[in-house]
Order: sequence, then C-alpha cells, then structure tokens
Amino acid sequence: MSAANSSNPAPETQNRESSSGDAVPVAVIGAGGFTGHELLTLMRAHPRLYPVHITSNAYEGRRLSDVFPDLDGADNGLTFSRHDAPLPDGVPVFLAVPNDTSLALVPDLLQAGHPVVDLSGSFRLHDGRAFEERYKLKHTPASAAAMSQAVFGMPEILRDSIRGAQFVSNPGCFPTGAVIPLAFLGAARQDLQSVVVDAKSGVSGAGGRTEDGGFVFHKVHENFRAYKILGHQHQPEIEEYAALGMPGTTGAIAMPSAEAPPTLPVVFTPHLLPLFRGILSTIVLIWKSTPPADLAERLRHRCESEPFIRFRDTPEAVELASVQNTNYLDLGLRTSGNTTVIVTAIDNLIKGAAGQAIQNLNLMLDFPETAGLL
Amino acid sequence: MSAANSSNPAPETQNRESSSGDAVPVAVIGAGGFTGHELLTLMRAHPRLYPVHITSNAYEGRRLSDVFPDLDGADNGLTFSRHDAPLPDGVPVFLAVPNDTSLALVPDLLQAGHPVVDLSGSFRLHDGRAFEERYKLKHTPASAAAMSQAVFGMPEILRDSIRGAQFVSNPGCFPTGAVIPLAFLGAARQDLQSVVVDAKSGVSGAGGRTEDGGFVFHKVHENFRAYKILGHQHQPEIEEYAALGMPGTTGAIAMPSAEAPPTLPVVFTPHLLPLFRGILSTIVLIWKSTPPADLAERLRHRCESEPFIRFRDTPEAVELASVQNTNYLDLGLRTSGNTTVIVTAIDNLIKGAAGQAIQNLNLMLDFPETAGLL
Amino acid sequence: MSAANSSNPAPETQNRESSSGDAVPVAVIGAGGFTGHELLTLMRAHPRLYPVHITSNAYEGRRLSDVFPDLDGADNGLTFSRHDAPLPDGVPVFLAVPNDTSLALVPDLLQAGHPVVDLSGSFRLHDGRAFEERYKLKHTPASAAAMSQAVFGMPEILRDSIRGAQFVSNPGCFPTGAVIPLAFLGAARQDLQSVVVDAKSGVSGAGGRTEDGGFVFHKVHENFRAYKILGHQHQPEIEEYAALGMPGTTGAIAMPSAEAPPTLPVVFTPHLLPLFRGILSTIVLIWKSTPPADLAERLRHRCESEPFIRFRDTPEAVELASVQNTNYLDLGLRTSGNTTVIVTAIDNLIKGAAGQAIQNLNLMLDFPETAGLL
Amino acid sequence: MSAANSSNPAPETQNRESSSGDAVPVAVIGAGGFTGHELLTLMRAHPRLYPVHITSNAYEGRRLSDVFPDLDGADNGLTFSRHDAPLPDGVPVFLAVPNDTSLALVPDLLQAGHPVVDLSGSFRLHDGRAFEERYKLKHTPASAAAMSQAVFGMPEILRDSIRGAQFVSNPGCFPTGAVIPLAFLGAARQDLQSVVVDAKSGVSGAGGRTEDGGFVFHKVHENFRAYKILGHQHQPEIEEYAALGMPGTTGAIAMPSAEAPPTLPVVFTPHLLPLFRGILSTIVLIWKSTPPADLAERLRHRCESEPFIRFRDTPEAVELASVQNTNYLDLGLRTSGNTTVIVTAIDNLIKGAAGQAIQNLNLMLDFPETAGLL
Repeated sequence: MSAANSSNPAPETQNRESSSGDAVPVAVIGAGGFTGHELLTLMRAHPRLYPVHITSNAYEGRRLSDVFPDLDGADNGLTFSRHDAPLPDGVPVFLAVPNDTSLALVPDLLQAGHPVVDLSGSFRLHDGRAFEERYKLKHTPASAAAMSQAVFGMPEILRDSIRGAQFVSNPGCFPTGAVIPLAFLGAARQDLQSVVVDAKSGVSGAGGRTEDGGFVFHKVHENFRAYKILGHQHQPEIEEYAALGMPGTTGAIAMPSAEAPPTLPVVFTPHLLPLFRGILSTIVLIWKSTPPADLAERLRHRCESEPFIRFRDTPEAVELASVQNTNYLDLGLRTSGNTTVIVTAIDNLIKGAAGQAIQNLNLMLDFPETAGLL
Repeated sequence: MSAANSSNPAPETQNRESSSGDAVPVAVIGAGGFTGHELLTLMRAHPRLYPVHITSNAYEGRRLSDVFPDLDGADNGLTFSRHDAPLPDGVPVFLAVPNDTSLALVPDLLQAGHPVVDLSGSFRLHDGRAFEERYKLKHTPASAAAMSQAVFGMPEILRDSIRGAQFVSNPGCFPTGAVIPLAFLGAARQDLQSVVVDAKSGVSGAGGRTEDGGFVFHKVHENFRAYKILGHQHQPEIEEYAALGMPGTTGAIAMPSAEAPPTLPVVFTPHLLPLFRGILSTIVLIWKSTPPADLAERLRHRCESEPFIRFRDTPEAVELASVQNTNYLDLGLRTSGNTTVIVTAIDNLIKGAAGQAIQNLNLMLDFPETAGLL
Repeated sequence: MSAANSSNPAPETQNRESSSGDAVPVAVIGAGGFTGHELLTLMRAHPRLYPVHITSNAYEGRRLSDVFPDLDGADNGLTFSRHDAPLPDGVPVFLAVPNDTSLALVPDLLQAGHPVVDLSGSFRLHDGRAFEERYKLKHTPASAAAMSQAVFGMPEILRDSIRGAQFVSNPGCFPTGAVIPLAFLGAARQDLQSVVVDAKSGVSGAGGRTEDGGFVFHKVHENFRAYKILGHQHQPEIEEYAALGMPGTTGAIAMPSAEAPPTLPVVFTPHLLPLFRGILSTIVLIWKSTPPADLAERLRHRCESEPFIRFRDTPEAVELASVQNTNYLDLGLRTSGNTTVIVTAIDNLIKGAAGQAIQNLNLMLDFPETAGLL
Repeated sequence: MSAANSSNPAPETQNRESSSGDAVPVAVIGAGGFTGHELLTLMRAHPRLYPVHITSNAYEGRRLSDVFPDLDGADNGLTFSRHDAPLPDGVPVFLAVPNDTSLALVPDLLQAGHPVVDLSGSFRLHDGRAFEERYKLKHTPASAAAMSQAVFGMPEILRDSIRGAQFVSNPGCFPTGAVIPLAFLGAARQDLQSVVVDAKSGVSGAGGRTEDGGFVFHKVHENFRAYKILGHQHQPEIEEYAALGMPGTTGAIAMPSAEAPPTLPVVFTPHLLPLFRGILSTIVLIWKSTPPADLAERLRHRCESEPFIRFRDTPEAVELASVQNTNYLDLGLRTSGNTTVIVTAIDNLIKGAAGQAIQNLNLMLDFPETAGLL
C-alpha cells in the first residue's frame, strides 16, 4: 500500500481504525484558482476528507494532474466538471468561486442539504448598503435567506456556532489577520480611540481581485504600492466582526443581528507585496488613555488555548516566513504610552482561505479541529 | 571629446560657457557603502561637481573602478583613502559614515572651513535625551557647537536656511517620506488628533542599520516583517521636523530652538520589503473633526512649486517603480470622513540620501537646485 | 486523536494496522541547516519514521520549535544535542553535516550497527585524486573502509543495491538532476560525442557551500552569475555515476569498482538563481552522428516505471514551479539533427537531498519506496 | 539654466561650444514599449540627440510624462503620435516596433532619406528560409532591397561599415552576448568542434516576444524555465554573424553576401530568469584538440581596444549586477583541457537594444561613439 493511498483514502480503504473514522468525499466548486488548488493540496494530507468532485468552467474536461502537475499522483482520476454539474448527494461543498456565482449557487446547495463552506465574500456583511457599495451586488430573496443562516467561519471567536452549522461563510484573508487580534481584546475595545490597520499582501491574496489588475511580473517585482485606499470590501467586514461581543464578556459570542450589526471603526489600507504568499498586518491601537496593564499577558493567555494562534515574544518575530504553508496566525505586540502596535502574519491561502475553510468543515463534521492542518 | 568628459569635468576642462560656471571638486568621506556609491553615481551626470577625494577604511588603496565595476570609465584614477586622510583645502564634503564617525569628524571639518553635508543621523535631533536613547551616543562640546550650526537639509521646508549654510544635516530616509507631506499641511496640523506612519523600505534603506541584521537572501526574499517597533531612531526626527512652523503661517520656517523643539506626535512603524530600492509611506491622519475641504487642492498647489515633488491624482498611483533611480517624491491622498490617507514614495538612496544631499549642496554653492538631478 | 499524532506517531501509538507496520525512530545529525530542516519537515508526513534525536552544535540545548517556528506543534519536546551526543541504539541515522564531519563520524556509526544515509559529499567519489582535489580532504583507513561499503543512493539506477544496504551515500543535488537522465540513455551513451550540463540552482542549493559566499540579499536579488566554473566538486560525481553500466544493458547496475571507475566526460557549469528552491539542468547532448530514432520514446518508457520521475511532453514544460516542495524530477527533451537538449528540474532540498534520503531509507528499511513522499 | 536643459538640448540652445557640435532631433517609432522607453531614458543624458517625434498606437495622443512618470521633467511637451504620422524631414529614426511593422515601414523611410536604426529582427538574417521559418514573415521586393543595404549594427565587428551607413539593423539581445565573444576568437574558430550557448534573460528581454506568454508574477517569481528550445529566432542570427570573417584575418570584416552567408553552428538555449534586466550567456567551446595557448591573452587584448567591452579576470566575476543600466558587455573565460567556458553579461535593454542602437547612430552621424553612453 502506498503512502498516497494512506493519506488520501479512496473509498475502498474505509475499513480504518475506529479512532479516526470514515473518510468523507467532498466537492470543490471552483477548483481551478489559487484557493481551489490550495484546498486540493491540503486535502492530500487530510485523514478524513478527499475530493470526489471538482469544477472549473475554464478547465472543464481536463484531468486534475494535467492542470496542476504538482498534484500528480494524487488525482485519483479526477477531471474538472462545470460549476453547474450535478453533485453527489449530500457531500460537503467548498465554494471557491466569484462572489456573484456564490450568491447564485448557495441557496440551492443548502436546499439540497449539502453542508457548505463558502469562500466568497457574498455572505459576510450584514450591512446591506455596505455590501452593495463594496461588492456591486444585491441579495436575492433566496440569498438573503441563506445569509440569515450563515455563520462567520472564524473558529477563534465563533467556534460553538460553527459546530453543527450547515452553512459557514469563510472569512476574507485581510479580515482574518485583523479581526482575530481585535476580538481578542475583549472588553478593552471600549477604551480604543482609533484603530489603524495597515495590511500587506502577496499577489496570491491580492490577485484574486482581478478588478485591480497589474500583476505582470515587471509591475510587481521590485515594486510596492497601496490599493483600494479607504474603499476595500474587507473594511466593513473587519469593522463588523471585530466588534462582535463588544461591550462584552469573555463568554459566548453569537452572530450579529442583521438589523443593527455592531461596528468597530478601523482605517484599513491594503498593499501589494512583491512576493507570492502571506499577509502581514500592522495594527495600531490608540487608546483613549492607556491600555490595560496586563494587555500582553491577557492576549498571550487567550492565544494559548487556540490550536492555530501562536503568540510571539516580540512583534518583530512575527514574519511571513514563519507562517507560509501553515494554518497558523502569528501575533506579537508592543505598547508605549497610549499606543499599542500589534503585528499578525498569516498565509493568506491557508489560514486566510483554504486552511480556515477545512478547519471550519472539521468543526461542522465533528472531526478534530486540527485534522489535516498540522 | 567624449561624453564622459563632458559630464564629469576634469580640471583641465574648466573653460566652460559662463551660463554653467566652473566645476567644483568635492570629497566623499565614506564612499564605499550604498550611499557613497550613489553619490558617485549621481555626480557622473552633474555638470558642476566631481569627486576628487574618496575614502573608505575597508577599501583603502583600491581603485574606485575595481571596487565598483559599474563606475568604470569614470574614475579619473581615483583610489580610496582612509577617512582621516588629509583633504584638499576647502573642498565641499559629503559625509556618508557611521553616526559616531560623523560626530567626531564634523567639528574639525567645519573649523577648517569646508562646506559639509552630513548624511548620518548625528546632527538632526535637538532633543538630547531622544538622541542618547535612540543613537546610544552623546554630544561632545565640539559636536554640540556644530549642532547649533546645523541646518536640516530639507529644501522643501528650509530652502532659505540651506542657501548659504556651511553645515547641512541631511534628513533620514524615513523622515524624508513623512516630514514633507506633514509639513505641507501647514496650519491644518493643529486639527490633527492622531498621525500613524507605516513605512516600508527596501533593503538598501534598512540595511545600513547593521544592528538589525538578517539580510541574507533567504531571510528577505518571499518574506516581510516590521522592525524596531515604537523604537526607531527616525521617529523623534519625524516628530521634530514635521512640527516646524506649527502653529504657523505659510511663511519662512526656521530651524527649531534646541531648548524646546516643537513636536508633532506620530506612531511610526518601519518594515523591510523584499526589494532593493525605495520607501513607501502610508500616512493615516485622523482629524479632530473633519479636514479642511480644500486639503487636496492646497497640497497639490504646494507641490507644484517644488521641482522634486510630484502630486499624483490618486494615492494608488504612488508606487516605488515611478521614483526608483530618481530624486522625486511622489505624493497622493484620499479623504473620507475624519480620515485622510496620504501615500508617499521615494528612492531611499536618492531623495532619501544622496540625491537630497546633492540638492542641498547645489543650494549651498548657489548652483541651480536641480543641477545633476533631473 | 489529532492529525499530528497520526502522521507523526509517538511510541504509544504503535498499535497500527499491519499493512503499515510499526513506526521507526531516527536520528538526524546536523538538523539545524536547510537540509536538516527539510528532513524534519518531510518526516511530519511520514507514516513510519519520526525523529527521536536531533543534533546541531550551534543550537545545542534549544527546542526544535524555538529554532524552527514553522515546526511548532510537531516537536514532541525535541531539543538539539551536540553532534557527538550518544545515540539511541541502532536507530537509523541521517547525516546532514559538513564533509569533514561525515568523514569522521560515519565509520563509528557503521561499526555500531546504525543504518546510515549520509548527505555529505565524502563518500561518493571513487577517484581518490578527484576527491582530494575537489574536497580538500583525504580518506582515513576507517573512512576508506566505509567507502567500500557505500552505495550511491540513487534508486532510479541502483535500487537493488540500496535495498538492504547499511550505508547509503546520498547523491549531490546537481548530480541528481544530471545523472538520472544520462544513465537512462543506456547503451546510447556510447554514441555521444559531447555532453554539456548547464545547471542553475536556487540559493538553498548553492548556499550550503559556504566557501562561495555572497548570499546577502542585494548580491543575489535581480542578479545572476556562474560559479566554480570547470572546478565544481559535483563534476567528477556526475562523470562517474552517469557512466554506470556503460557500455551496458538495461540490466542490473552495480557500484563502480574503486580501482577503475568508469567515466562519462561532461562540461559542468553551475549558476546561482535569485530564488530559494530548485535546480534546473539544461543538458546538451551532441551525438557522434544522430541519436537513436526512438530516444524520446525510450526515455518516456524508462520514466514511467519510476514513482518520482515525470516525463513531460515538451522540455519547455519542465520548470521549477512544478517540482518545488515535491520529490519529483521532471524531464523533457527535444532533438534536432545531431543535438538533443534534455531539461530536468528538481527541488534541490527534496529530490536533491532530504527527499531522496528518505526514499533511500524507505528502501533500506523495506518500507514502501514512496512512503511519506507523495 | 537647468541641468535638464543642458543634457537634453532644445533647439534654442544650439549655440554650443564647437567641440560638442549641434544637437540633432530624432524620431522614435514605437516609443511605448520597454525598448522605446529605454531609448528615451538614455537620450536624456545624450549631449547631441533629443527626441522630437515619438509614436505608439496604444498611447496615441497621450503625453510622454503621463505614460512614463519617471520621464517627467524631460518630455519637452512630447505626445505620442501613431506609427504612420508624418515625420520631420530627414530626422534619424529609431524603429522599436514589431517585426512585421518594421518590414513595412523601413523601405519608405530609407526612400525618404532618413537615417534608420531598426531594432526589430526583420533585417538581420540573410538566409531567407531561416527567416521565414523563425519569423513567419516573408520579404517583399521593397524590404528585400532594404535588406541589401542593411549593416548589422555590432560596432565591435563592423564599425567601419556602420560609419556612414544609412540603414543599420540593430542586433538581437541574445546575439549581442554570444556573437561578440565568438567573433573575437578570430581564426581560432576553425578549430572548434562544438559551441553550446546557454543564455538566461530577465523578463524585459524575453517579454518582448509576446508569443511566449506567461509573464504574470506568480509564473515568473521563484521559478525558472527554458523556452523555444532548438527553435529560437536568434539562433540563426548568432550562427551567421559569429562566422563573419572566418576563416579569416584580424582585418576588416564585411557584411555577408546574401547568397551564401557563412555559418558557425551553435546549440542555443534561452531561459527566463525571475528578474527584470540582463542576459548572462554561458558559452561552452569544445575544441578539436586544445585551444591556442594565448587564447585568454588575445581576448583580453581584443577587448581593451573596445570602449564597451570589459575583460574580467575570472568568468565568475561576470554577473548581471555589474552591467545593469550600462552599455557594457562584461566577459571572462576559463580553459581546461579541450574545453573553454566563456561567460558574458549585458543589459539586454541597453547593450542588447537601445544602448547599442545609440552607439550605432553615434557612428552613423560621426559623433563620438560613446556619446551619451558612459
């Protein structure tokens, strides 16, 4: 028996020891982009999930290993279907398609009973005006109904809601790096005067947003610039979820009501780095007076209970190289006077997308949360 | 006559047309580093300046073109001396040496009558405590006396003081990208609640600071990180000079008094980019209420009178690629509500160091300010 | 049970299904460098091997996850010992230390009964003069005896000799990319007039060779150069092993005799690429007349039986991106007249070092050859 | 008077000292690409040439400084016309347009009396079959007549023919790095058995050839590959011009006859580097027996008389960083037995295109050959 089979179990190998349980086939709708590729790559090492159906309108009919040579040896004969091809009954679905495609597909998938993790931005914002303004899309009655079911898939703050959910909306890459540290501040958020998030992303994070263009080598290499200043679609997402449970306790946090979602105002500026993977976020907190004396200790403690958050002794120790190709978020901070600087780093394709999606599906299917991600 | 001779005039070609005037020989003390190399490169195209004396303790006795093959053909037989070698009488001096070396050398150079442009950080801070804390150095009586003579070499805000000065302290690279836009705000600075400067530098800007280390290829390439968070030596420099003339008029600005230098508090975070040249600064202004309605127009107007500042229509159009290998600072901004985001870009080795130094010497010697820099 | 435990089995989880067998603890001597790090990374996904003893004189006493944050969560409490710390009885040993350290350590390890895979260059060359000239080292009687036991660890040409061997000398990274395609030519090698191997490596391949220096970011980024022209230590290694079994049949190939190793002369030029991982080798074959008409077909056929060699339809389809982070060697070729150009690509740290070492240990321990590598 | 005016003379400043002479206005047809941009950049520092007419069908009607912000301050109000806009009478013309556009435009330009330097590949190959096969183009009677006038613009081997020529066909970038060292071998070329040229180019060299595609950041960064193996259009160009004057003397070399152009067979493989500027060529010479004992000395001597060729003491000292942004070709070599390895490096946009074009126009207009290029 080869290692490939043991790590990517085909149906005939379902006689596995009881401690790990049966493997579950899943569908990846939108498997031809950076995120879809990453989902397939990560599932190769997953003990309980394996792809059984993959779609890409661009690659319809082509073999997986032909499109992605690095996945050769693990394709189990998979070929790409169109996004609208019929799905195996009841399989969990990862959606890694453009926003408008998600908006159209999700209601039917939920109706048909599929567990769904949607990686688009279509089911994150409760503020309808912000959604229309930033995404240039409007909810249909069906998608609005789906939205009311959606759980924001950030286990660090909504783990209990994700467990058992049918529909999880996976966070955006920038929000992942910003919301987690802000939410971890807990009640202290009430004492913030200003929050400035300066985020820098590799092209795999920025490049999905094709409306921005400019990804030819000579426009990125040995270059650096900001984009979508004061207008990025992730800003309201950060503002909504960073405010969850505030003013609050450390107890359970629920999804916001659609009527009056809370908000923690932030100034958010994304930038494009001349590299492929990773987002580093520099988060400046200016406090009304001074921060809690035990701020660092509290954050360290909060991080310790999380399997994918690593607290670093200094903010300078947080760097992309340590998190690339992992599902970790690294976090460090320093305070001086009324200012705290928090730095976080993630791999935008993993913790910021495909890895977090698998973490969510693990919770939805009652698998160990870390399965396939360590 | 070859082009080399016409752009890098040797003494025997001093019979030039009166409109350009005689060429002046200069000394570069510390010509072996990134900045020294850049000074020599820029002077090749300068109609009035040419190097006659270059020093480097590491390269003592070696030919210029042997150490820097790209400068071959223009060395006029120059070889490196030690920093303490005797200088030709009265020649203007560029100092591109470590802070402690500048501190020791400047008093004697001034005493001997040399015009001096110092590119170290030793003569910028009037706040003695900040100087000791950030630079781990103390002024001697002689260097303190030199300090009282120093003019901060930022022509955009202190042009009149630089003209005719004997001693100019050239601004730091990060302060160049931050102070200029802040000073241009004029009286509006009084209405600022918070200023956050998030700056990103290529290795040639960060690498001079050898105390930071970590510049091996595999630690920089495909990586990104912040450094010296809330402790960089350029923060007090920004705070002091960004406050010049505030609360103020648009009239002449003088050097600050040593007793009570003004200060405009900023949160400053430098980062290391995986590229060689350039600093992009993202400057978030949070206003007490709202900014002046004509803020952008005023800044555009202010920039138009400056030969090396270019106002861009959008802040997204400001990028490193447009300023690399030039003496320009590009600037763009956007306001929403009580927030303004200004983005600036410079070539840290040119506008942030060698180019600005030449711009200063041009003013000191009553040459056209742009000579050799366009 | 977590995924980490299942893929990196600790002793208490030895009750596994019979098809996979017990897990084996191994030692990594020299675990602090690029190659050691890669061995530890790969073993995390290996179903049968796990590190129990790791050494690094530089990191003595430090925790694995402290030195390599990306390996956090998988260190099982491992800390670095010194190279000469006592080993657990009989454990298989990976040696990833400098050449002279391997030369000194191997004889005792063999004597003590450890299975050994040595990743240094000390036990590859049978031509003593070439060894002394290129490595500036001389064999001792003990190391010469070890040399006589050594099997060159290239499964594609010496699989049967590796099975059951106690001592495998792992091939160099450049030889891996060159020897495999040349050996696959079989009897046709007799008809070659000239072989020119032009190889380009990322810094992780070239950087181990510290005698070469020059790996500061600004000397590598946006730069390219050749090194050790007509003098690299991998040239005689290529020449010796590319000749194995020639003039020959397709049958079993044995290790060369020390007395008169065969040789296939090649011109070998290594270059340094501004990237981290991968070696692309452009191999020009000039035939005495014309190559066998079915050359491409024969090579394709030969590759198909190999689990880690992928034959590409065109040589332009061979690129570093497809092999990075894999144990594959990709190969493509084109012939015109009396010239054939073969292009191969490998990840120098995996197929060129750590991956091939694990492939060898898999064979030595009678595990599936691909275990942990797909 | 500003430095800009002095280096980029407008008509009103023609009263210059007699030693430099009047400045000449030129046209750049195809000024919107990499090469056109480089021509305009170089002319800013040229004492005798300035652009008066620039064309680009894509940028028609736009200001130069709007399209290329880095050229701001030097545009003299220039705006782009279409390629077919009427030209000022008799101005010298640089053509930096696609091959088929050059083929169509050159005959009329010559007819109208313009001195022409064509940077396309349309007028280089005398072997009509190779031209049709590699360029997918056919000469018209008019272009064939132009071809008979064309002088290959490589001053190092055809300087006397270029002086006074009306029509110069500028060499390809790869041929520049390969032909010069091969031609310099002189009579020794007769003793060569094989020549293998392995060339590696930054994207600005490879990217012009849009038929190749694949220049998105993530396909180039951290990647490397060969392209157009055994089929690149520059191979016959190298073979034709590397043979000029062979078997020969060191005397004058004339353009080849169209009937039977000589040829020196080479195996040529181009590769794409993850960087912007520069071509490094590794040229392996395999001699029938051994090379002339004084080969290195002869080459050094031959290089010394050339203003833009620098002989390096070792081939490892030849690197892209030393030649980027210069018009130099650096060259080094090493011989062992019957093998010589020559390494050359150029900036493909300068010595490989725009710089060499200006060097040619300098010769055609009887300016100093190095004007504007040092």
